[in-house]
Amino acid sequence: MNSRDTIDTQLNVLETFDPIVPESYYDCDILMLGNLTPAVQMKVIKQLPKRPKLIALDTMDFWMQIALDDLLNVIKEIDLLTINDEEARLLSGELSLKKAANKILTMGPKYLIIKKGEHGALLFDKNNRIFSAPALLLEEVFDPTGAGDTFAGGFMGYLSSQEEINWDTMKKAIIVGSAMASFTVEKFGIERLVSLSQSEIDTRINQFREMTRF
Amino acid sequence: MNSRDTIDTQLNVLETFDPIVPESYYDCDILMLGNLTPAVQMKVIKQLPKRPKLIALDTMDFWMQIALDDLLNVIKEIDLLTINDEEARLLSGELSLKKAANKILTMGPKYLIIKKGEHGALLFDKNNRIFSAPALLLEEVFDPTGAGDTFAGGFMGYLSSQEEINWDTMKKAIIVGSAMASFTVEKFGIERLVSLSQSEIDTRINQFREMTRF
Repeated sequence: MNSRDTIDTQLNVLETFDPIVPESYYDCDILMLGNLTPAVQMKVIKQLPKRPKLIALDTMDFWMQIALDDLLNVIKEIDLLTINDEEARLLSGELSLKKAANKILTMGPKYLIIKKGEHGALLFDKNNRIFSAPALLLEEVFDPTGAGDTFAGGFMGYLSSQEEINWDTMKKAIIVGSAMASFTVEKFGIERLVSLSQSEIDTRINQFREMTRF
Repeated sequence: MNSRDTIDTQLNVLETFDPIVPESYYDCDILMLGNLTPAVQMKVIKQLPKRPKLIALDTMDFWMQIALDDLLNVIKEIDLLTINDEEARLLSGELSLKKAANKILTMGPKYLIIKKGEHGALLFDKNNRIFSAPALLLEEVFDPTGAGDTFAGGFMGYLSSQEEINWDTMKKAIIVGSAMASFTVEKFGIERLVSLSQSEIDTRINQFREMTRF
């Protein structure tokens, strides 16, 4: 077998995973597709009888390299794509993040989030708008495990609490997700999250506002 | 000669540069010391009979490595230090930029700017305040030459136009400097700057505001 055959065999195995969406989830408002084989992400979308208000998809360079066609197919069906800066460059073939974002937004999604780790995140939409969210500067990162998942949870949780999903609620959702993630890394596992109060979250969101206001 | 002797000989040569501050500059409001031998930067400060309202200093890793004592001496005398993220880590011995900033702010300066290139810049002060300035996302960088100098010029120019130098004017100065630099890179040399109008600058400053407001 040549290496393309080997990859195809591996892909076939990955795609045999057949998640069944429970009926009680059929009318979900928002759907977050975790970083998995694009063909499997597509299987989840196809099972929903009614289209959710927002379909978000997380992916990575690995799928761009071995399953680009499947990935492009599923990207056509979604509203929001989240990737990091290097992945945005890889997917678009553009070095400038602005050009990369413009190109990716012609592939299907209405919104694009480019994650930049310790440098925060960028949100783009089809109307050429850009939002730059800073990362909170922490003195100590005790345990970074789960930061990305907490971001996604805080982000989607905030959106699901809102009547409308639009530019303003998307921006706020990024800040809420970033604030939540900044708590996660302060302690081990979910220790910090279980003791978290709404007022602590609000205080941290205000820190983001203070950090960027001029 | 061992390598330290070689470095000392080179430093002696660099320090023979003896800039004479013209009398007409003696009462300058603000002073920007460009990235040069720390001992030479000190010579400029010492020539001024009256202390300016603000002394800013630019430096780099090279001076931290070969002339650290001189650099620490001149840093004691200044109000604002500008370096990049790796230099902040080198100077402080701290990986966390927040810890690095806190440590550097005990060395003398009231304010610290950490430049992060395409990720913008951070401003810190002794009261534990942080301002995060985004970089404008450009589709095309035609010629990056002079971007750093234009930032410094726009930054210091804005401050010199203000009655007071405080947290608010410092934040605005970073945005003005970033906006000016974003024009410089659009064309060759100073071509874009000579044709620049105040309303174009104001429009760009508003783009920075739009990019960060939530």
